[in-house]
Amino acid sequence: MILTVTLNTALDLTYGVPELVPHASHRVSEMSERPGGKGLNVARVLSALGHRTVVTGFAGGATGAVLRELLADLSPQEPADDPGGTDAPEPGAAPAATAPAPITDALVTVAGNTRRTIAVVDRTTGDTTQLNEPGPLVTADEWAALLGRYEELLAGADAVALCGSLPPGIHVGAYAELVRSARTAGVPVLLDTSGEPLRRGIAARPDLIKPNADELAQLTGSREPMRATRDARRRGAHGVIASLGPDGMLAVTPDGIWQAAPPARVPGNPTGAGDSAVAGLLSGLVEGLSWPDRLRRAVALSTATVLSPTAGDFDRAAYEELLPRVGIEEHAPAAR
Amino acid sequence: MILTVTLNTALDLTYGVPELVPHASHRVSEMSERPGGKGLNVARVLSALGHRTVVTGFAGGATGAVLRELLADLSPQEPADDPGGTDAPEPGAAPAATAPAPITDALVTVAGNTRRTIAVVDRTTGDTTQLNEPGPLVTADEWAALLGRYEELLAGADAVALCGSLPPGIHVGAYAELVRSARTAGVPVLLDTSGEPLRRGIAARPDLIKPNADELAQLTGSREPMRATRDARRRGAHGVIASLGPDGMLAVTPDGIWQAAPPARVPGNPTGAGDSAVAGLLSGLVEGLSWPDRLRRAVALSTATVLSPTAGDFDRAAYEELLPRVGIEEHAPAAR
Repeated sequence: MILTVTLNTALDLTYGVPELVPHASHRVSEMSERPGGKGLNVARVLSALGHRTVVTGFAGGATGAVLRELLADLSPQEPADDPGGTDAPEPGAAPAATAPAPITDALVTVAGNTRRTIAVVDRTTGDTTQLNEPGPLVTADEWAALLGRYEELLAGADAVALCGSLPPGIHVGAYAELVRSARTAGVPVLLDTSGEPLRRGIAARPDLIKPNADELAQLTGSREPMRATRDARRRGAHGVIASLGPDGMLAVTPDGIWQAAPPARVPGNPTGAGDSAVAGLLSGLVEGLSWPDRLRRAVALSTATVLSPTAGDFDRAAYEELLPRVGIEEHAPAAR
Repeated sequence: MILTVTLNTALDLTYGVPELVPHASHRVSEMSERPGGKGLNVARVLSALGHRTVVTGFAGGATGAVLRELLADLSPQEPADDPGGTDAPEPGAAPAATAPAPITDALVTVAGNTRRTIAVVDRTTGDTTQLNEPGPLVTADEWAALLGRYEELLAGADAVALCGSLPPGIHVGAYAELVRSARTAGVPVLLDTSGEPLRRGIAARPDLIKPNADELAQLTGSREPMRATRDARRRGAHGVIASLGPDGMLAVTPDGIWQAAPPARVPGNPTGAGDSAVAGLLSGLVEGLSWPDRLRRAVALSTATVLSPTAGDFDRAAYEELLPRVGIEEHAPAAR
C-alpha cells in the first residue's frame, strides 16, 4: 500500500467561460467538480497504475463531505471474483493490463470547511486563472488526531508521499515531523511542498523531494538546475528529482545522476503533471524499478497528463506510447 | 405574508483577492458565503423591514443544503413573549422600531445541485468579477411540484415577487404562468427578470415590473427612459418602475408618473440594490403606502444598499437618514 498525505485537501472546481474579462459578469458554460489537493491527485494516478493507495489528511464541513463522496465514487469496486487483481502489478507487467486499484479514505474529519479551488478556463485563449480558498483552521487536537492516524497507517505502508500546502493552524515544521516519523518507521518518504514547509521538511532528511524550478530557486537561490539540485541535496534530501517542466527531469540521487526527457515538448495543460510524476516515482520505487525506469515512468506520466484533455488526468494511450521513448542520459561519475 | 419566488437560488460566495490578474494563481484572502438569488435577497430586506416572508423556488444537492442551513440561520427566532412583534409594522411606524420578521423556507427540493455564484472582489480597484454557475437541470415533475407549492402559498400571500433567472429545464414562459396564477388568486405580483422570460411574463399582465436600463433597452429597443417605460406598459405591465441607477427611479403607473431621486449620487457596490428596491416597493404596497412613499422607500433602501460595506445588505442608519430626503417629482398628467 502507498500512503499519500494531503493536509489541505480541496474540492477542485473547473469553470469554463467563453472569455474571462475582469470586472464583468460571466455565465459559466461548463463546470466540473472533483476531489483535489496534490496527495489526492497522486492517489488517483497510483490507482490507475494498479497500486492500492490510502489517503489521509483533513476534510470537514459541507465541502469536505462532497469531496469524500466524490473520492468514494472514484475508487473502483473491489472485484469479488478476482481479489488478486487489485494488488500491485508485477514489475514487468504491461501497463495496459493494469486494473485500477482501490483508494481508501482515511481522512481525519475536522470542524472547519474544506477549501474550494476554482480554475477558470478561458475558452478563447485556453489560459487558466486560479482562485484558491485558504482552507479550514485546523486545531491542535485535530493535528494530534492526524499524527495518530498517520502512525497507524505507516505500519502498513510501502512508501508515503507528503503533498501540498499547509492549512491555517498547522505549524510550519509539520512536514519535518511527518518525515521523521516515516524515517523512524522505515518507510520511504517523498516530500512535495514549497516555501518554508519544504525548507524545514528537507532538514528532516526525506528520501525524495520533487521540486519544480520555482520551488528550487526559492529554496536555494539558484535557477541553474544542477547547482540548485545539488544544493537541495546538501540541505538534507537524499534524492532530488527536479522538474525541468516540458524538458523532463533531473535526478540527483545517492546512486547517480540522470536526466530524463520526453521525445518532444508537448502542448497542453500542465496542471497535475507534477502529481503524476510523484505517482510515477513512488510506484517505481515500490516496484523496485531502477532509477532510469522510474524516471521514464515519471516523465511519460507527466507528459501524458499535459496531453490529457481533462486537467490532472493522464492519457493512458499517450503514456504507453511515450514510455519507451523517454530519453535517459546518465551523467558521468566525475560530473557528480 | 409576502411570498418571494426564486427559481434559480444560489449559494453566493464572495472572494477577496489583493488584485485579480487573469491567468495567474490567487490566494483568496477573505471569503464569505450566503444564501442568494434575487428572491432570497428581497426576503432578507423584507425581514429587516419587519415583514414576514416565505421563500419558494428550488434547492438541491450539497450546495442547496448549505443554502438552506444559512437561510435558517438568517431568520430571527420567533420571540416567545411577543408573537405580535413579527407582524408587518403599522404604516406610520418608525423604521428604527422594526424587529426583523421570520423568513420561512418553502423551497422545493430538486435532485440537481443548486448553483454557486462567485464574486471576486479586487481589493486594489474595488471592482467585482462575477462567475455564475448555470444551476441544476429542473425536471417536469419538479416544476409541477413547484406549481403546487406556489398555488398553496398564494392563498396566504399579500403580495408576491417573482425574481431572477430561470434554471435549465424550465420553459421560457414559466414566469407568465406564475403571473397568471397570482392574478387569478388576486395577489399583487411583481416580476423582476430579464430577456425572453421578462418579455413573455409581461404579456401575462403583472402588476409591476422593475427593469433596469439594460433590461428595458433589451425589451423595448429604447434607452430613453420615458419612452421605454411607456412601451413596457403597453406590452402588458400595469406599472413599470424603471431603475435609473444612481439617479433613482421612474415610475409609470395607472395612478400617475413619478420620478424619485436620492439626495446625491453615492459611491459603493450596487450589488443587491435592485433587490432592495423590490423589497421597498412590495412592503410599501402591502402597507398601503402612496406611490410617492413607496418610491421614497425603494430609492432610500437601494441607495443604502450601495452604501453598505457588505454587498447586498443595506445600511439601516443611512436608510433612515435618506428616507425623508428622497426627491419626488410628479409628472403633469399631460406628460402621461
